[in-house]
Amino acid sequence: MIRFDLSIGLDYTVLTPSDFVFIIQPTNTAHQRVTWERLSIEPNPAWEEQVEGTPPNRHLRLRAEPGSLRLRYEAIVDLVHHFELPVDISEVPIADLPADVLKYVYPSRYCQSDHLVSVAMQEFANMPPGYARVEAIRSWVQSRIKFQVGASQATTSAVETYESCQGVCRDFAHLMITLCRALNIPARLATGIDYGADPALGPTDFHCYVEAYLGDRWYLFDPSGITPRMGLLRIGTGRDASEVAFATIFGSVQWTMPKIRIEAQGDELNGIVLPFRHDYAISTDPAGSPPDEATLMLQAQDFAIKDRALPSAAS
Amino acid sequence: MIRFDLSIGLDYTVLTPSDFVFIIQPTNTAHQRVTWERLSIEPNPAWEEQVEGTPPNRHLRLRAEPGSLRLRYEAIVDLVHHFELPVDISEVPIADLPADVLKYVYPSRYCQSDHLVSVAMQEFANMPPGYARVEAIRSWVQSRIKFQVGASQATTSAVETYESCQGVCRDFAHLMITLCRALNIPARLATGIDYGADPALGPTDFHCYVEAYLGDRWYLFDPSGITPRMGLLRIGTGRDASEVAFATIFGSVQWTMPKIRIEAQGDELNGIVLPFRHDYAISTDPAGSPPDEATLMLQAQDFAIKDRALPSAAS
Amino acid sequence: MIRFDLSIGLDYTVLTPSDFVFIIQPTNTAHQRVTWERLSIEPNPAWEEQVEGTPPNRHLRLRAEPGSLRLRYEAIVDLVHHFELPVDISEVPIADLPADVLKYVYPSRYCQSDHLVSVAMQEFANMPPGYARVEAIRSWVQSRIKFQVGASQATTSAVETYESCQGVCRDFAHLMITLCRALNIPARLATGIDYGADPALGPTDFHCYVEAYLGDRWYLFDPSGITPRMGLLRIGTGRDASEVAFATIFGSVQWTMPKIRIEAQGDELNGIVLPFRHDYAISTDPAGSPPDEATLMLQAQDFAIKDRALPSAAS
Amino acid sequence: MIRFDLSIGLDYTVLTPSDFVFIIQPTNTAHQRVTWERLSIEPNPAWEEQVEGTPPNRHLRLRAEPGSLRLRYEAIVDLVHHFELPVDISEVPIADLPADVLKYVYPSRYCQSDHLVSVAMQEFANMPPGYARVEAIRSWVQSRIKFQVGASQATTSAVETYESCQGVCRDFAHLMITLCRALNIPARLATGIDYGADPALGPTDFHCYVEAYLGDRWYLFDPSGITPRMGLLRIGTGRDASEVAFATIFGSVQWTMPKIRIEAQGDELNGIVLPFRHDYAISTDPAGSPPDEATLMLQAQDFAIKDRALPSAAS
Repeated sequence: MIRFDLSIGLDYTVLTPSDFVFIIQPTNTAHQRVTWERLSIEPNPAWEEQVEGTPPNRHLRLRAEPGSLRLRYEAIVDLVHHFELPVDISEVPIADLPADVLKYVYPSRYCQSDHLVSVAMQEFANMPPGYARVEAIRSWVQSRIKFQVGASQATTSAVETYESCQGVCRDFAHLMITLCRALNIPARLATGIDYGADPALGPTDFHCYVEAYLGDRWYLFDPSGITPRMGLLRIGTGRDASEVAFATIFGSVQWTMPKIRIEAQGDELNGIVLPFRHDYAISTDPAGSPPDEATLMLQAQDFAIKDRALPSAAS
Repeated sequence: MIRFDLSIGLDYTVLTPSDFVFIIQPTNTAHQRVTWERLSIEPNPAWEEQVEGTPPNRHLRLRAEPGSLRLRYEAIVDLVHHFELPVDISEVPIADLPADVLKYVYPSRYCQSDHLVSVAMQEFANMPPGYARVEAIRSWVQSRIKFQVGASQATTSAVETYESCQGVCRDFAHLMITLCRALNIPARLATGIDYGADPALGPTDFHCYVEAYLGDRWYLFDPSGITPRMGLLRIGTGRDASEVAFATIFGSVQWTMPKIRIEAQGDELNGIVLPFRHDYAISTDPAGSPPDEATLMLQAQDFAIKDRALPSAAS
Repeated sequence: MIRFDLSIGLDYTVLTPSDFVFIIQPTNTAHQRVTWERLSIEPNPAWEEQVEGTPPNRHLRLRAEPGSLRLRYEAIVDLVHHFELPVDISEVPIADLPADVLKYVYPSRYCQSDHLVSVAMQEFANMPPGYARVEAIRSWVQSRIKFQVGASQATTSAVETYESCQGVCRDFAHLMITLCRALNIPARLATGIDYGADPALGPTDFHCYVEAYLGDRWYLFDPSGITPRMGLLRIGTGRDASEVAFATIFGSVQWTMPKIRIEAQGDELNGIVLPFRHDYAISTDPAGSPPDEATLMLQAQDFAIKDRALPSAAS
Repeated sequence: MIRFDLSIGLDYTVLTPSDFVFIIQPTNTAHQRVTWERLSIEPNPAWEEQVEGTPPNRHLRLRAEPGSLRLRYEAIVDLVHHFELPVDISEVPIADLPADVLKYVYPSRYCQSDHLVSVAMQEFANMPPGYARVEAIRSWVQSRIKFQVGASQATTSAVETYESCQGVCRDFAHLMITLCRALNIPARLATGIDYGADPALGPTDFHCYVEAYLGDRWYLFDPSGITPRMGLLRIGTGRDASEVAFATIFGSVQWTMPKIRIEAQGDELNGIVLPFRHDYAISTDPAGSPPDEATLMLQAQDFAIKDRALPSAAS
């Protein structure tokens, strides 16, 4: 089990009466328990939390009058991962995809997979299907795209990232999703926090990563490679960033960089480990089978010792 | 009430084992009752119907072996419309949009509303918000875009249609949806059959049209203008065509044009009228208040007599 | 006649050995005489001026070593305009276009006129051909596009400007050129200095404007409307900005904003007037008939008095 | 020396009075002599040949009235190649590029090299500059893009070909040119006839190929690989296809496939050989040093014997 202590601070200067839709609160599921949280918003506008979608995204909606708007959110979140050996995980034939997974094979706003079918076929069609092929896609994206703050915009899509070869975590995620879908592998975007990222990339920030549906559940991938996968918290889940922006604002507003803090709290005696890099496949899919904790924790501690030394560990 | 008798025939030559996902069966809701239907598929592959989404799309899934595949579907469908005077219908402030409607303000694969904000503002920002503004968008799209079979492809998006000024019903719908969303008006795509279309446009075919969320429900618009709105059957509903293609095929398959027949059966004594063009706003939103038929039918017959003569009737 | 006194200062910090190609010196032609000029470059790299193309562009080429690079250019330039009444200027049938003009009907990097044919036809096909139609295109671009520094990039093309509705003078010029070509009207881009621009748009800077081939020569248009046309100096001339960037740099270099000064020197007794806004068509086409100065100056002074009061003066 | 006997037949049904600009006649230069030619056009419209540009493109212009238009052209053309060992040919530093070559480093309509800089850097920046690197680009394009008639349109640019991975010779040429320019290697497009192409690709047709400026002249490359380079005739030369379409038509016209015949006439005793595939770099650059035929012919015959057996011959 992983335990995170996190806080998020958002500050705005509202110029005209404006509507906000935030998706910043971690999802509460069997594999990710929000054990404590506190939200304060100043001044004190009426707000509403609306849970929508599967997995559930927590929409925090409010209307702010001109002046300053200050939002502070704190939470303790426990993650319980499902672990699997990559070699045991296969791709799922279209005919066997669950009804609610099928839609993640189709193109979306930022992931126009219909445009990159030939590219995906050329690079990956010769590889045997399975988890290893999806990891190869992830690795290809990481090595080909340069992490460059400011090189992309809100409108930048995967096709443009494929051309420009630069972007931020969101662009990495969109391109990996697009290539997966072009091969009929369901893939979706999740948002979180960039726990463990190199400080040279800037202060702690929101993060975007990828889930691909393999075997019987959604597995985690970080195409930017900046976060160990065990550190990937789930805030929003969607087809792509068009569905899970951390803040969607209707109105005229000035903003500053989010102030985000995240710490993992290790307590190995109680089975709480710090996120680390290894080569197991991991999942926090709320729809996956609920975790059998005792077993899993033993298993986790077991390979934690063994695999920390693996030189080839991906992320 | 409107009553349709329809049949759909789809014929394929399957070259390699292929998966099919069809969305061709009309949705069954309080405003649209499928009172009888029959489906036959030859040869006799295992198939499954999966209902997914809100409003519910009926996914017909099957796997076909090489050889011919023949699908025949017939149905009787009754439509009960909600009528409203356009002048009574307002746009909904963002703050008041229901949680499950909000997502239809965001950009999607074919409707990159983030790209056309300036265009939408220039053309429509000066108009008072309300149904009339959405109808103005519809009318602008109809007059600006030329209906041209073959001028667009499966990958054509609204931004490209805005440039090329030509396309088919799907392109008209994508552009109208995009302009609505750019003004923060929720809009989505529905598929149906082009009842009443000019035979010069070709044989009866599937159709795409638009729903915009106004007042307390989704209202119907046909930006191509080829179908009277009362003739708009609901088959699939989604963000755009990426979610509701009538056939999604994974495999190598040859196909021929769909063979579609649709007839409206009038029986005025029993309150069943033929679709006609008028200026009322109409809705078949499954989430809207259920219809009070007696009243509605009287109302319908009433304005049917009055309004048939209206020279300015839009569609 | 118009007389300009101008200076241009460019400062760079060269990080790696770098090649520079500048196009900053005004062209020397019968209608635009560079009567005096001085160029200094520090430190003292070998440089070469290569005149290339028709009209001639003056390429200033040099190779700089790491360190600072400082370029100062000063000149006195006299402009002698050809004047014509708009109503007397017709569009030229394709069959009558000179061989060296024909290429300006074809699409180019930033002016993909093949993409915007339908748009151009819808907006302008119904207007009678002639100078007035080209002015209508110019006016449409000026009113539709918002001048917004930072809204476009070096890669931004006319199709993107048509979508985003914002940009700088270069984007205005590209869109106007594109729409002209889409109607088979030869159009090209010229660079100059934004004499007379509103200081609110920032310090004096390089400028881009349009020439359209009408009647028997190239006439001047300023789609951004920020400069009176009589103030349009000719530096570079090309299909679009890809051919006449004021500085093309091969290497790693830091730069600051150009420091530019331009002043018009009036001396009405000697027939030298200040640029002013009026509705005559004007040209400085080097290939046009050489000016008959005595006549022209009288004419200019004549309408200068009459037309300064015209409320409808375009630019 | 190579000798071609060729004929071109073009047939149109003109629906409205239409202007035609043809570029179908081979250029006449020191390295490519048109020793005999005959042109007939029925009915007998006035036509004009205008030679424009460097190297000179022969524009055949005419205006046709409604009815049929029939053009027949025949010619005998001798090619004298300059041969060089690839290892002796270097790339040219920007500072040393001739003034009239520099423009071929800039982006153009179909070759938006500014968009693909990162791609070019990733794939080719690590290779030593020189002819071999340009050949590596050519080979990469040939292996990556699938020759597919109908997969591209008149508006298709190199960026789109890079995404879709399919196209015809024109698309291959545009992508190779774009990648060269992104590395600051001057590259341009030439048109010719697809001598020697596999009949499975269709009847003899016009062809597009690439020239890259290396050492002291323009060298020939065929990224589609369908023609032996010695069989590359020069018809038009330009930045990209926007400048050298074989027919540009202003009007409403129906057309049929061009009827083209080309034969190489061998006469080894007189030093006239048939085109063959080998690994020498070759050029027909009119601006290159004029050929010393006696020497060259000996050299050609010499390696003709040696190199025909080379298994690695590129094209």
